[in-house]
Amino acid sequence: MGQKVSIGKIAILLSALTEEELEYFRGSLNDVKYCQGRVGSMNMQKVISAVETAAKRNGLIHESFYREAHALYHAILEAIEGVTRGHPSIGEMSRTVGLRFSVVRGYPYTNVEEGEWIAVAFYGTIGAPVKGLEHETIGLGINHI
Amino acid sequence: MGQKVSIGKIAILLSALTEEELEYFRGSLNDVKYCQGRVGSMNMQKVISAVETAAKRNGLIHESFYREAHALYHAILEAIEGVTRGHPSIGEMSRTVGLRFSVVRGYPYTNVEEGEWIAVAFYGTIGAPVKGLEHETIGLGINHI
Amino acid sequence: MGQKVSIGKIAILLSALTEEELEYFRGSLNDVKYCQGRVGSMNMQKVISAVETAAKRNGLIHESFYREAHALYHAILEAIEGVTRGHPSIGEMSRTVGLRFSVVRGYPYTNVEEGEWIAVAFYGTIGAPVKGLEHETIGLGINHI
Amino acid sequence: MGQKVSIGKIAILLSALTEEELEYFRGSLNDVKYCQGRVGSMNMQKVISAVETAAKRNGLIHESFYREAHALYHAILEAIEGVTRGHPSIGEMSRTVGLRFSVVRGYPYTNVEEGEWIAVAFYGTIGAPVKGLEHETIGLGINHI
Amino acid sequence: MGQKVSIGKIAILLSALTEEELEYFRGSLNDVKYCQGRVGSMNMQKVISAVETAAKRNGLIHESFYREAHALYHAILEAIEGVTRGHPSIGEMSRTVGLRFSVVRGYPYTNVEEGEWIAVAFYGTIGAPVKGLEHETIGLGINHI
Amino acid sequence: MGQKVSIGKIAILLSALTEEELEYFRGSLNDVKYCQGRVGSMNMQKVISAVETAAKRNGLIHESFYREAHALYHAILEAIEGVTRGHPSIGEMSRTVGLRFSVVRGYPYTNVEEGEWIAVAFYGTIGAPVKGLEHETIGLGINHI
Repeated sequence: MGQKVSIGKIAILLSALTEEELEYFRGSLNDVKYCQGRVGSMNMQKVISAVETAAKRNGLIHESFYREAHALYHAILEAIEGVTRGHPSIGEMSRTVGLRFSVVRGYPYTNVEEGEWIAVAFYGTIGAPVKGLEHETIGLGINHI
Repeated sequence: MGQKVSIGKIAILLSALTEEELEYFRGSLNDVKYCQGRVGSMNMQKVISAVETAAKRNGLIHESFYREAHALYHAILEAIEGVTRGHPSIGEMSRTVGLRFSVVRGYPYTNVEEGEWIAVAFYGTIGAPVKGLEHETIGLGINHI
Repeated sequence: MGQKVSIGKIAILLSALTEEELEYFRGSLNDVKYCQGRVGSMNMQKVISAVETAAKRNGLIHESFYREAHALYHAILEAIEGVTRGHPSIGEMSRTVGLRFSVVRGYPYTNVEEGEWIAVAFYGTIGAPVKGLEHETIGLGINHI
Repeated sequence: MGQKVSIGKIAILLSALTEEELEYFRGSLNDVKYCQGRVGSMNMQKVISAVETAAKRNGLIHESFYREAHALYHAILEAIEGVTRGHPSIGEMSRTVGLRFSVVRGYPYTNVEEGEWIAVAFYGTIGAPVKGLEHETIGLGINHI
Repeated sequence: MGQKVSIGKIAILLSALTEEELEYFRGSLNDVKYCQGRVGSMNMQKVISAVETAAKRNGLIHESFYREAHALYHAILEAIEGVTRGHPSIGEMSRTVGLRFSVVRGYPYTNVEEGEWIAVAFYGTIGAPVKGLEHETIGLGINHI
Repeated sequence: MGQKVSIGKIAILLSALTEEELEYFRGSLNDVKYCQGRVGSMNMQKVISAVETAAKRNGLIHESFYREAHALYHAILEAIEGVTRGHPSIGEMSRTVGLRFSVVRGYPYTNVEEGEWIAVAFYGTIGAPVKGLEHETIGLGINHI
């Protein structure tokens, strides 16, 4: 009845760890489909597009099904809430981001009928548009697909 | 001018990894002060209190200075925004949480005059008040102290 | 002491029903002043302008009184909260809308001294900027005028 | 590629129309599964529970699948955003509600592979806890299931 | 066409100044109706009630008209947004407040047909429920009546 | 243990009073560092920049320390929440502002180890982009520095 695969934790590790650090967790990556990417724009629309494009290109969602695009979109929005902590209009607020992201798709629950779920994670920095004037930020969104 | 210690990443690992997985990152824990804890309440006030109490008891903040309590409080609120993704009144919304948290205090920047900063991270599950009807959630808040 | 005219319900029907379906409710339209319109922009400013322009052009508000513009503006904002369900910056979020809207002005309460109130309703679709990748959405705002 | 069944519009009509008015739309109700209910509490938790209980009792969602409960829960939250227009903590804010609600489940898209979606609608009054000091409010949430 | 009476500024001065400091502004108080009060509760509902009760008792709003209660209620909510800066559920967040408030009713515009408007202001401290662990906060809401 | 200097009240007076009215409060200005400015843009980014530039130019914050920029930035965001009362994307919402602002830095607490804090206040008008169609607004943010 519990969870067997922590797709959220995997997504966070994929976005926050270095390649070398990730080696330690390679085993758990076999249970899921995933992709990784980067985005450095202040524009929310570009952040969303970067994740959607990566997810489609890597076959994480079926491009022609709205229900999958809908699940991904809301997972992205939820992850952005974590990144911006209640101030989602990054560009408006004159902040800049340097983010690595990941999308993970898998069966988190032991009951296989619970089906597939999708996790989106961001890790990176957010701050003033000046190098160094920034601190870390993380966000995670999860949805059924 | 950049960051030398990623207190946010350390906070996330402290809250999301098992003891065994954390062994791999032991080295980076020497650069910071930290504490860990758990909270399972649906009540936001209890979530905040649990972190504040742990931080004070472990000497992460000086109990008698409001400025340190103020820094911690806002870092907790930011982390909660990630956990609840825009719906911070967990109890009102009939959700329950099972969270591990960590508080990390350190000097993230190479320029030591940037002083100390504090990171608060949560990792766990959020969902209906029924075992199994829940998914993962993560939150991170960072503030200067 | 109760309500005699449901200006909110009338506004919703005016925006969501076809001309044919509306025939059934023609009777209740005699009790109010109203106008209808369409807006298809991703830009929040254009959504607001479209409603304001229609309301002025059709005499729903007196153009020269700020108090009426103020009442309408807040009713529009409230209706937008329903349409976007907590993410009001549609454009930023890379969503597109195809909305029909209505503005209804009337005396909802049996006590005529409660004066006139205004209702703004939206009905249509919101989604990715691709035809078909969208679902329905509704919003209603009401204010005293 | 478009929508063939407007589950959102059906949900709104089910919650806002009288039995007599609904007769005119009986035909479209054959395409979906639905239930109706009422809730009059100031407590958000009770509002959510009332809808969840009605949906389970009437077989609108499969009680044992978290993915279905998850889809319903987020549709309810979205509908509540419309009802409260950005101030979701009704009780905290000393307002009271008298709401009729409906849950509709069906295949909105011509492409049957888009699968089933769920719509939750509320219609009623919100206001001060005094009879008559209230106005209409509407909310609609839609999710893939 | 401009403003002749700054009801918002008057409301702020009434809530933030000492009796002695207010002497300097006595002249401008003749142009408006106003009342003052205090509230020290962590409970949002009590904050709202305290203002509503004071406004009614002092004849700032007509108790029997919903339109006036509606105008006041939304002005209070707007002022609370300033006090809590985006985290309106004070009690949930384990903060306490010590606030003085004022309600001001008058004709702000030279054009008398713009009618009466209402301003609600809060000034005081917000912080942890420990004496001294708190800082100042201010909020102002304005509405047509 | 209490507060000896009300930096928030001083900031509000600096932004809301005329030069003549301020004379009465000259004495309390000796206890703090402060600057004043104006901003009239609909663009949130310009509002933030105007305050940041004034604060740096007048030595209210040390330009080279991120921790000071970080403290100021969050104080500005909190003040903006008061100005916009929960709708921070002014431009998107087709509103215009005419604001005077002030930044105040000082030691508010009798215990000097509580260190320096910063207050940001706005006072002015917000409304439709038409002269006269606007009302007053106020915002205050406070942070440790």
